[in-house]
Amino acid sequence: MKHTRRHVNLRTILFGRPIKDREAESRKVGVWEGLSVLAPDALSSVAYGTEEILIVLSAAGVGALWYSLPISAVIVLLLIFLVVSYRQIIRAYPTGGGAYVIGRDTLGPSAGLLAGAALLIDYTLTVSVSVTAGIAALVSAFPSLLPYTVELSVLVVAFLTIVNLRGVRESAQLFAAPTYLFIVMILAMVAVGLFHRAAPTPLAAYVTPTAVSVAPLLILRAFSSGSSALTGIEAISNGVPVFKEDSVQRARRAMLLLGLFLGSMFLGTSIIAFRYHIVPNAEVTVLQQLADRIFGHGWFFYLLSFVTMAILSIAANTSFAGFPQLASIMARDEWMPRMFLARGDRLVYQNGIIVLGIISSLLIIAFRGNTDALIPLYAVGVYMSFTIAMSSLAKKRWQEGNDPHRWVTIGMGLFGSLLTAAVVITSVVTKFTEGAWIVVLAIPTIVWGMRAVHQHYRSVADELRLEDLTLVPKPKALVVVVPVASINKMTLATLSYALSMNPEEIVALHVAGTPEREARFHARWKNWNADPRIKLAVVESQYRSVIRPMVRYIDHLTGLFAEGRVVVVIPELLVEKSWQNILHNHMAVALEAVLIFRRRIAVTVVPYRLQQKPVNSKPS
Amino acid sequence: MKHTRRHVNLRTILFGRPIKDREAESRKVGVWEGLSVLAPDALSSVAYGTEEILIVLSAAGVGALWYSLPISAVIVLLLIFLVVSYRQIIRAYPTGGGAYVIGRDTLGPSAGLLAGAALLIDYTLTVSVSVTAGIAALVSAFPSLLPYTVELSVLVVAFLTIVNLRGVRESAQLFAAPTYLFIVMILAMVAVGLFHRAAPTPLAAYVTPTAVSVAPLLILRAFSSGSSALTGIEAISNGVPVFKEDSVQRARRAMLLLGLFLGSMFLGTSIIAFRYHIVPNAEVTVLQQLADRIFGHGWFFYLLSFVTMAILSIAANTSFAGFPQLASIMARDEWMPRMFLARGDRLVYQNGIIVLGIISSLLIIAFRGNTDALIPLYAVGVYMSFTIAMSSLAKKRWQEGNDPHRWVTIGMGLFGSLLTAAVVITSVVTKFTEGAWIVVLAIPTIVWGMRAVHQHYRSVADELRLEDLTLVPKPKALVVVVPVASINKMTLATLSYALSMNPEEIVALHVAGTPEREARFHARWKNWNADPRIKLAVVESQYRSVIRPMVRYIDHLTGLFAEGRVVVVIPELLVEKSWQNILHNHMAVALEAVLIFRRRIAVTVVPYRLQQKPVNSKPS
Repeated sequence: MKHTRRHVNLRTILFGRPIKDREAESRKVGVWEGLSVLAPDALSSVAYGTEEILIVLSAAGVGALWYSLPISAVIVLLLIFLVVSYRQIIRAYPTGGGAYVIGRDTLGPSAGLLAGAALLIDYTLTVSVSVTAGIAALVSAFPSLLPYTVELSVLVVAFLTIVNLRGVRESAQLFAAPTYLFIVMILAMVAVGLFHRAAPTPLAAYVTPTAVSVAPLLILRAFSSGSSALTGIEAISNGVPVFKEDSVQRARRAMLLLGLFLGSMFLGTSIIAFRYHIVPNAEVTVLQQLADRIFGHGWFFYLLSFVTMAILSIAANTSFAGFPQLASIMARDEWMPRMFLARGDRLVYQNGIIVLGIISSLLIIAFRGNTDALIPLYAVGVYMSFTIAMSSLAKKRWQEGNDPHRWVTIGMGLFGSLLTAAVVITSVVTKFTEGAWIVVLAIPTIVWGMRAVHQHYRSVADELRLEDLTLVPKPKALVVVVPVASINKMTLATLSYALSMNPEEIVALHVAGTPEREARFHARWKNWNADPRIKLAVVESQYRSVIRPMVRYIDHLTGLFAEGRVVVVIPELLVEKSWQNILHNHMAVALEAVLIFRRRIAVTVVPYRLQQKPVNSKPS
Repeated sequence: MKHTRRHVNLRTILFGRPIKDREAESRKVGVWEGLSVLAPDALSSVAYGTEEILIVLSAAGVGALWYSLPISAVIVLLLIFLVVSYRQIIRAYPTGGGAYVIGRDTLGPSAGLLAGAALLIDYTLTVSVSVTAGIAALVSAFPSLLPYTVELSVLVVAFLTIVNLRGVRESAQLFAAPTYLFIVMILAMVAVGLFHRAAPTPLAAYVTPTAVSVAPLLILRAFSSGSSALTGIEAISNGVPVFKEDSVQRARRAMLLLGLFLGSMFLGTSIIAFRYHIVPNAEVTVLQQLADRIFGHGWFFYLLSFVTMAILSIAANTSFAGFPQLASIMARDEWMPRMFLARGDRLVYQNGIIVLGIISSLLIIAFRGNTDALIPLYAVGVYMSFTIAMSSLAKKRWQEGNDPHRWVTIGMGLFGSLLTAAVVITSVVTKFTEGAWIVVLAIPTIVWGMRAVHQHYRSVADELRLEDLTLVPKPKALVVVVPVASINKMTLATLSYALSMNPEEIVALHVAGTPEREARFHARWKNWNADPRIKLAVVESQYRSVIRPMVRYIDHLTGLFAEGRVVVVIPELLVEKSWQNILHNHMAVALEAVLIFRRRIAVTVVPYRLQQKPVNSKPS
C-alpha cells in the first residue's frame, strides 16, 4: 500500500507525480514567467487588433484607412487607463478573482455574478477561438490537413488540458519561448518599419481629402472591432495568487510590462500598417503583409507566421489558468458546483480545467472548427467586467476616505467605467446581429443558473443545520430483509451478518417462479431450521423479474413498519478474475440502484469473496 | 405504483407491453407462420446456391458449366437425406437446441460443445452476411446510398433486434409476405423456364465434348460452394419449441415443406440456368439474369430483385430466433453466462438477441460492410453440426433397440454423417486459404471459453454448497465506521442508524486537512457529546483526497479487528431534482466502489432525503 504512489503508470506520465500541500509555494511563478502564463491572450490580440480596424474601415474605401491612426490612439489611451486602474485593483484585491471578487466585495453579489458570468464565457470563447485560429494558420501552410481542422483543434485543446493538469509552472516553462519571441519580433518589425528609409510613398500622398467622408457609425464599428485588442489584459489581476511572494508587487510589475509591450506593439503595428498602406485581404494577415514588405519573403516572414500560430494557441492557455481559479472562488461562494473546489494531486483545480477543455471542445465541434462567428462575442463580456472592476475601484477608494490622493483614483475609476461601458454599448449596438445577441442571452441565463445553485446550497445547509446540540444519536428499531435465492454458504454468511445487527425482525425473502418451486423451497427451509428470529417470506413472480417483486415487498414492509428503519442486506459474490463478473447477475448492484432512492430504506452490501481453489472436477 | 406498467412510454412503443408467463402459449406459431420465421435462411440460399457452383465451374470455361447439373442433383440427394433425418431428429429431441442437445445427450458433452460453438458462429455469420448482401442489392439499385452501406446495414440489424425483442409472433407476421412471395416467384419462374418453347438453343448444341476435361478438385470446390445452399435447414429442428402444440408434428411438417420448396427451387434454378446457358457475372445475379431472359426486363425482374433483397435481410431473422434459444439451453447447462437464461417482459431471451445484434453489427463494421470474405466460413460450421446430429441419431436408435425398422434410420444416420463429414473436409481443404481457417481457429477458441465458464460455475457451486445443514447463522461482533464531515442532521441520522446496529464499537471518522482544523473539529465534537459508545477518530490528509486516508484507516481497523466484521455506514444525500446531483460529491458512491472489493468490509448506504421546502432566503 505504502509505495503505490511511486509506481510509474500512465497517470504519472501524463500528469506528473502527486504534489503535497506544503510544496504549493514552490509551484508559483515570478514576474517574467507569470507574464508568459497570463499575457499571451492579451499579446496575441496584436495579431488581429489592427487588422480588425482596417477590415471595417476598408469597406469605405482605401482613403478611410487613415482613421485607423486616431482610433488606435484612442484604444491605447484606453489601455493606459486600464493598466493604471488594474494596478490599483491588484493592490486592493490581492487574492485574485478579478472583476468577480471586486464587484462582489464592493458593489454586491449581483454585480459580482454578472462579472463572473461574463468572464467565464470569455475564458471559454478564448480557448475555442484562439485554438481554431492557430490551427487555421497551420492549415493554410499545410492544405492537406484541411479535412482534419476540427480533430486537430480538439487535439490541441486536449494537449492544453493535460499540460494544465500537470500544474502551472510546467505551463510557464513550456510557453515562455514563443511569447517572448513574438514580442521581440513585433517590436523589431515596428522599429525597422518606422525608421526604414525605403518607405514606398510619402505619407502625404496617401492621405487624401476623401478620408473625411466616412460615416460616424463606421468609425464606431471600427473602434469596437479594434477594442478586441485589449481583451485579456484583466488576466493578470484575476490570477494574482499564481505569483510568488510578494505576489501583489510581482503582479503589478507584470501588469506594467504587459501594458508597455501591448501598447507599443499595437500602436506601432497600426502606424507601420498605415505607413506601408496595407489593405487587409483574406489570404495573408496584416502582420504577414508587413513582414513581407519590411523584411522580404524570407526567414522572418515564415518565422513570424509560425510564432503567430504558436501564440494564438498559447493564448488559450491564459484561460486554463483563469477559468479554474475563478470557478473555485465562485464555488467557495456557493455560486458554482462544489466540485470546482477540489484540488487534485498536482495542486491544480482539476475539475475547472477539465470542464473548460470539454466545453471549448464542444464549441469547436458545434461550429465545425469555424469560430469566426464567435469573435464578435468577445468584447461584450470583457468590457462588461472592466466596467464593474472600474466602478468598484472608485467606490472602494471613496468609502475608505483616508488617502488625500484618493480622488485621482476615484476619478480614474469613474472615467474608466464610463469609457468601458461605452465600449460595451457600442459593441452590442453595432454588432448585435453579428452575434452579440448570443452574449446578451447567455449572461442572464448563466446568472440565473448560478442563483439556482446558490439557492440549493443554502436550502440544504438550512435543512441540515443542527441548532439544538442536545439532540444526540438514538438507536431505532431495525427490520432486516435478506434476499435468499437458495440455501448455501453465502446465505449463511449474509444471515449471520443480519443477526449481528440485532434487528427486531429478519425476513429472508425468496422469489419463486411457480407454486411448485415455492413449496419446494419452503420444505428445504423448514428442514434447515436456521434461526427462530429469521422468518421466511416467499413472493411469486408473474413477470420472471426478480427485482420487481422484491422491491414491491420491501415497499410494502416499509409502509407497515413506520416507526423504524428497513435495512436490505444483499450479498455480492466477489470473483477472482474480472472476466468472471459477466457470469453473475450482480443483484446487489441492481437492487441497490432501485432502493437507494427510497427515503427510509438503507442498503447494505455484504461481499462474499470466493477462494477459487482449483476444484478437481471434470466437466459433466 | 400499481399502474406503472400501463404507462405508454418509449420502452412500450419499441418493445410492446410486458407479457405474463401464462400468455406464453398464445405467442407460439403454426406450421406456415413457423416456416416464415425459421425458413428464410435456408430458402434465401436459392439466391446464391446455383450461382456459387457456376462461378467455380466457369473458371474452367463455358463447357464446364454442364457439371452444375450432376452437382446440383447430388446436393438435392444430400438435402433429401438431411430432411428425412431431421424429421427423425425433431421427434427424438422435441425441446429444440438441435445439434447441441442431440450431441450432448447421445455422444457426450464434447460433441455437444463442438456443435454448439459451430452453430453460434453460424448464426452470427448469417446475420452479418445476409444483411450486408441485402443492403448491397439495395445499393446497386440506388447508387447514391453507397457511402452509407455500413450505417444502413447496422440500422437493419438494429431493426431486426428490436422486432425480435418484441417477441416471435410479431416477427412471423412481418416476414411471412416476402418469404412466400419469394417461393411463389421462383417456382413460377422455374415452371415457365422449363416448359417455355422459346428456349434459345437446343441443349445438345450447348453440351460440347470439352466439358469432360475438368479437374476433379474443381468439381469438389464447386460442390463445396453449392453445399452452402443447404445451410439453414437445421433451424427448424433447433427451434421446435416456438411451434404450437403438437410442436413436434408441426415442426416435422414444416421441415417437409421446407425440403420440398428448397429442393424444387434449387434444382429447378440449376436446370433452367443451364437451359438458358447463364454465365455468372459480377453485375447481375443468376436469378436476375433468368428473370430477364424468361419474363423480360419488366415488373417481374424488378419485383424479384426487391423480394430477393427482402428475403436476404429476413434470413438474418432466422438467427434471431435460433441464437437466443441455443444460448439459453447452453446457459442452463452452464456453458454460457447465466444472463442468457433471463427472459424479458416480452417472453423472449432478450440478452441473446441483444448480444447477437451487437456482435453481428461489430462484424459488419469490422469488415466495412463487405462480408463476401465471410461466406466461405458458412458451410464448415453448419456441416460440422449436421455430422454430429446424424451420428447422434444413429447412435440413439441403435441404443434403443426395440423398433425392427430402426436399422433403416441407423443406416441413414451413419451414411448422412459420413456424407456431411465429407462436405466439412472438402470445404476445409478446398477453401482453407479463402477463410475456412478462421472457423478452424474460432471453434476451438469458443469451446475453450465455454469450458472455462463451466469450470467457474462448478467451482463456485462447490464452494458455496452447504452440506452440513447443522451450520446455522450466528451473529458476529460488528465495528461500525461512520465518515463524518461535520455535525449536522444527516450526521445525527447516520449515527442513530449505526447505534441501532448494536455494534461493539462505533468510530466517527473525520478527515482533516490541517492540524488547526483537526483541533477545531475535536472541540466541536467534545461540545456535542453525542454518545459514549461513539469514538471520534481524526485522520489528516496530506494530498487533499478524502477517500484515500479513509480507506487506509478502514484497512488498518480491519486488520486489528480480525474476529468480527467492519461495517462502513455512509450517508448519501438525496436531492429533489436530478440536476442537483452535480452539486454534491457523492462520497457514498466513491467510497463504496473502493470498499466493495475488500472481503471483510460490509458497506451500508443510508439515504438522507431533503424535504426541499422553499427556503425564504436572499442570496448573500
